[in-house]
This record gives sequence, C-alpha cells and structure tokens, in this order.
Amino acid sequence: MKTKQIVLASRPKGTPTTANFRTETITLSEIKNGEVLLKPNYFSVDPYMRGRMNDAKSYAEPFQIDKPINGGVTATVLESKSNNFKKGDCVVGMLPWQVQSVVSEKGLRKIDTKVVPESYYLGVLGMTGLTAYFGLMHIGKPKKGKTVVVSGAAGAVGIVVGQIAKIQGCRVIGIAGSDEKGNLLKEKFGFDEVINYKTTKNLEKEIAKFCPNGVDIYYDNVGGAISDAVIANINFKARIALCGQISLYNSTETPVGPRIQPMLLTRSVLMQGFIVGNFSTDFPEGIKHLSEWVKDGKLKFTETIENGFDNLPAALIGLFKGENTGKMIVKV
Amino acid sequence: MKTKQIVLASRPKGTPTTANFRTETITLSEIKNGEVLLKPNYFSVDPYMRGRMNDAKSYAEPFQIDKPINGGVTATVLESKSNNFKKGDCVVGMLPWQVQSVVSEKGLRKIDTKVVPESYYLGVLGMTGLTAYFGLMHIGKPKKGKTVVVSGAAGAVGIVVGQIAKIQGCRVIGIAGSDEKGNLLKEKFGFDEVINYKTTKNLEKEIAKFCPNGVDIYYDNVGGAISDAVIANINFKARIALCGQISLYNSTETPVGPRIQPMLLTRSVLMQGFIVGNFSTDFPEGIKHLSEWVKDGKLKFTETIENGFDNLPAALIGLFKGENTGKMIVKV
Repeated sequence: MKTKQIVLASRPKGTPTTANFRTETITLSEIKNGEVLLKPNYFSVDPYMRGRMNDAKSYAEPFQIDKPINGGVTATVLESKSNNFKKGDCVVGMLPWQVQSVVSEKGLRKIDTKVVPESYYLGVLGMTGLTAYFGLMHIGKPKKGKTVVVSGAAGAVGIVVGQIAKIQGCRVIGIAGSDEKGNLLKEKFGFDEVINYKTTKNLEKEIAKFCPNGVDIYYDNVGGAISDAVIANINFKARIALCGQISLYNSTETPVGPRIQPMLLTRSVLMQGFIVGNFSTDFPEGIKHLSEWVKDGKLKFTETIENGFDNLPAALIGLFKGENTGKMIVKV
Repeated sequence: MKTKQIVLASRPKGTPTTANFRTETITLSEIKNGEVLLKPNYFSVDPYMRGRMNDAKSYAEPFQIDKPINGGVTATVLESKSNNFKKGDCVVGMLPWQVQSVVSEKGLRKIDTKVVPESYYLGVLGMTGLTAYFGLMHIGKPKKGKTVVVSGAAGAVGIVVGQIAKIQGCRVIGIAGSDEKGNLLKEKFGFDEVINYKTTKNLEKEIAKFCPNGVDIYYDNVGGAISDAVIANINFKARIALCGQISLYNSTETPVGPRIQPMLLTRSVLMQGFIVGNFSTDFPEGIKHLSEWVKDGKLKFTETIENGFDNLPAALIGLFKGENTGKMIVKV
C-alpha cells in the first residue's frame, strides 16, 4: 500500500525553510505480529524539533537525512496485529510524519477522546502539559504569594505554566510577542500582567515595574535578551527553570550575552535545565493533577490548528515566527 | 587608648589599589559590660571582600567610606567585661581592621589553638572550609567515580574542595595559574590532574583530554573564559556550584561571554549560586566532618601568610593577582 511521508531533505543553517523538507511516496510494509496500521489525525509540532534538525548530540536523537521526521501524533488504529489495540482505538505516540504508518505497538498509549478533545493528548495532557507541570512544580517550587515570570507565555507550555502558577496562588507575569496574545492571557487564562516584548522599550524596567518585589521564579522558554532582562530583576534564592531557548535555536553562531553567573552567585539563584523525560517516573502524578484541573475547569487550553499533511513543515517553521498561540497542531 | 585602623578611603574602579585604603589613628572607647578588648593575631583576606568595596546591594553589606574594613579575624582577649570570655582566651569573629579593638561579645566564638594552628579557624575550620564543604557536598553531591573539576584550585576554597572530592572517591581535575601550584596540588593534596590555564593554549580541549567521560561536577571559583571551557565539557545532569567569580570581580563593564543556557538546557544541568550563610543551620555537620578529616590527616591545608598590619591592603589586592596558594592570611 502506498502512502506519503515527509523527510528531512537537508539540515538548515539558521531558520529552517520548506526546502529543508521533501514529501515522497513510499510503500508501507505488511503488518507483522505486534504491529498496527495507523491513520494519524493530529500532529504535534514543537520548538525542540529544531534541535533535532541539527546533526548534534543533544537530549533528542537528531533527525536523519532522507528519513521521515517524527514527533507526537494521535492516530486511529485501522488494522491491528497487537493484543493491546483493536481497530478503531485512538492512540498517541511518537510517530513518523506519514499519512499512514505501520508501527510497533510499543510506545503507543490508548487515549479516551470522549472526555477531552483528541488533540489535547498532544498538549495539556501530553508532553506539553507535563513539561509545564514538572518545570514549574519540581524546579520552580511555587508558593503562595511568590512572583512568577513566564517567557514565551502565549506558547503551549507558557499558557499552562501561568495557569498552574495561578492555581498555586502566585502572582504571574507573562512575556509574549503581541498585545492580542497579552489580552488573551490576561482575560482567558488569568495572568496578572503580560508584557509585550516587541513594543516595550526597556524590558528590564518594565519587568521591575510589574514585579516590585523582584522575580522569585522564572520559567524560561525563550532565552536571549528577554532572559537577560528577567535575570536583572531576579530575587535572592530565586529559582529558574530552563525549558526552552527558542530565541537562540536558529543562531548560526554561538550566541553571546552578559555573563549571568555573577548575578546567580550573589543572589544565591538556582538554575536548572531539564527535559520532561527527566521526570518520567513521576508522570502519573503530573497527569493526575493536569487531568483534574482540566476537568474542574481550572486549567484551560488553546491551540493553533493548521490543516493538511503538506502544511507540516510550514507549521513547524511558523513556531519560530510566533505564529501560534498555545499549542501548534496540524490536523489531517 | 590609641590604636590604628584601616578604612576604605574610596571605592575602586576595577582592580583595587592601596590608594583605596587609608591608615589612621583612633581612640578606643572604654569597655562596657558585654564587651571585650581584643588584640587581633590573624586577619583573613578573601575574594568576596572585593564585592563589599562596591556600593552595590549584594549578599554582604558594602564597606562604608571612612569606616574600617572588617572580615574574619582571630584574636586574643586582653580585657573582658563579658561572662563568656576571659583574659587570654582566643576567639574568632568578624572584626574591624584595627590593631586593637573593643567589641561586643556577640558573634565571637572561642577557639582551641592547641589542636590546630590558630589561623586554621579562618581557613579549613572556618568559612573557607565550610564554603568548600557545602558547595561540594550539598550542591555538587559527589559520588564515587564521578569527575569533579575545580577552578581556582590552588585558592583556599579550591584546595579543600579537591581533597573532599577525593575523600568521596571522585576523580579530581584542578585548574590553577602556575605549574608550581599544579605540582603542589598533585603531590601534596592528591589532585589527579591540574591544568595551568595560563600556559594552556586550548583550555576546552585540555579539559576534554583529562575528562574523557565529561565533567559531572564543576566547583566554580573563577568564572569567565575558564568556566566557558569547563561548561563546554559538561555532562548530562551535571551539577555546577557557583562559589566565586574572581576573574570578573574587577570588571568595570558588564562581562560578556557565550550564553550558557542552551548548554545547561540540552544537558539538564543544575547551576546553583550560593553563599556559605545559606547553610548556617547545617554548620555543625560541616565542622564535624572537616575537623575529623583534619585530625585524621585526610584533609591538609596550606596558607600564604603575609606579615604586618600595614600589609593588609596589599595582601587583599594580591588575591586578584593569584599571589596566594591556599588561604591568604595576614599575621600581626
């Protein structure tokens, strides 16, 4: 049986373009025992994928040239030679960018699409939500009354971080790239203040204005000059969760900036880089809390949904232009 | 009664000079109840004092213009109106740079100079030893077989850090500023390797050569380019204790360098700035272990002792030129 797939055609220098991808037709192999035939419904595109486009050792395996991109996907089981999944089941897993795929049952997880929308399993109830949860709760350790700053606040992770921080009783200041995003974050998601970094002349002073008692917890999704401005306002014994550095991912040279160690030293600050996989043994705890908050209406979610398999590369590239509010998803 | 004191005459721009200090004669006040008259014997000069010469909010109070410098001092009690100390007692405390001083009994601690040399209470059994102990044990969390890198390895703190890491079964690589210091660290203090950063052309490669499995724990006393080279070799889930940044203390502009957050993020690294006071509730634990190791001969110590009260400013300035091996002390 024939299907389409999108492969990495070449490694990008700087910001990826659609020329770094290639769509091709392939023949699917026969389903063997322990395998299923899947029809993907929703594809997740995420900032971390940029790192996988480089040929560099990192926490996630690099994509291989001429091999399909892969990432988080929800899919319907069309045929099954697995004892764990039957035709019609809905599953989530790390799957190739293919219109259909034959894959091992290993690594697939059955999901219930009656309670929450299917795509949420790629977002608030998936790696996105868990990344927000563990970075904030296990590294940031929020306490009532503390001031939390979130960069990339209108991104998929940032939106969840801000709401969890509010649930914990914190004051939450978001940093985002447009007034529309800022209004949404304040009105729908309960952020106390949102700073538009694109129109603010002196970000350091603006943060100081909104954080008169300093920044106790900084959840960093973007890095670069925005983080410099936050760290200039960081408190004694503050905690910084390093989740993403999207402002630097497309740099072709080593990014340079003010050295942060003197500030971290004199203010006894903790900075912790992490990937969600570090907390895998605690995933049940995270999923339990996230599910409860979603069901109770305390944790809302938003998505930017692009349509069509062929738009996957453009959607991924759009992340680096801030085209998404919340989770960027491609529906097929 | 007249005595001499050394005050801060002006705040330095960049590296301090003797012109930033002034010696003057003062009249001591009468001893009141709860006070003692002290004759200091050993003065501690420490890198952190540079920060106190600036008029900037930091973890330690800035020195005041025209007021005496103060720091760690051991002294003999000449007269006492305190119930806790009697004439002839030897004490340690934070005291002014004065040839004699009248001070409150509060903050003074009696020391036993029969077991270890008096000056050790400013070093391995004082703040220096505790700083090494807590930064390594509570932040670095060494385990047998791990690779520990210590910058400023021949400094007072670095020498203790390296030896504690060896006691914990780690492989220890020091970074120091001369071959003489390197030989001493290897031969007397048991470091596995020492890199002379002044004569090494490519520090990053040299560290890679001596740390073929990467750096698990980095105890940072110096910052700057040396730390860049260590962080380039940092391991997944490594831990960095930020104790000092002496290479940057005399900078007149904000120091700039490669951004470290991408590396800390992709390798899930923890970086923690600290001052020893953060661990004050655990001091008894630290003193217990340090004392045992010193008595057992497992923990050796070395000092650079300058003579004469008037040489205090020069000794402090000498720290920034690397003139010391081990703890810099001024004996009067």
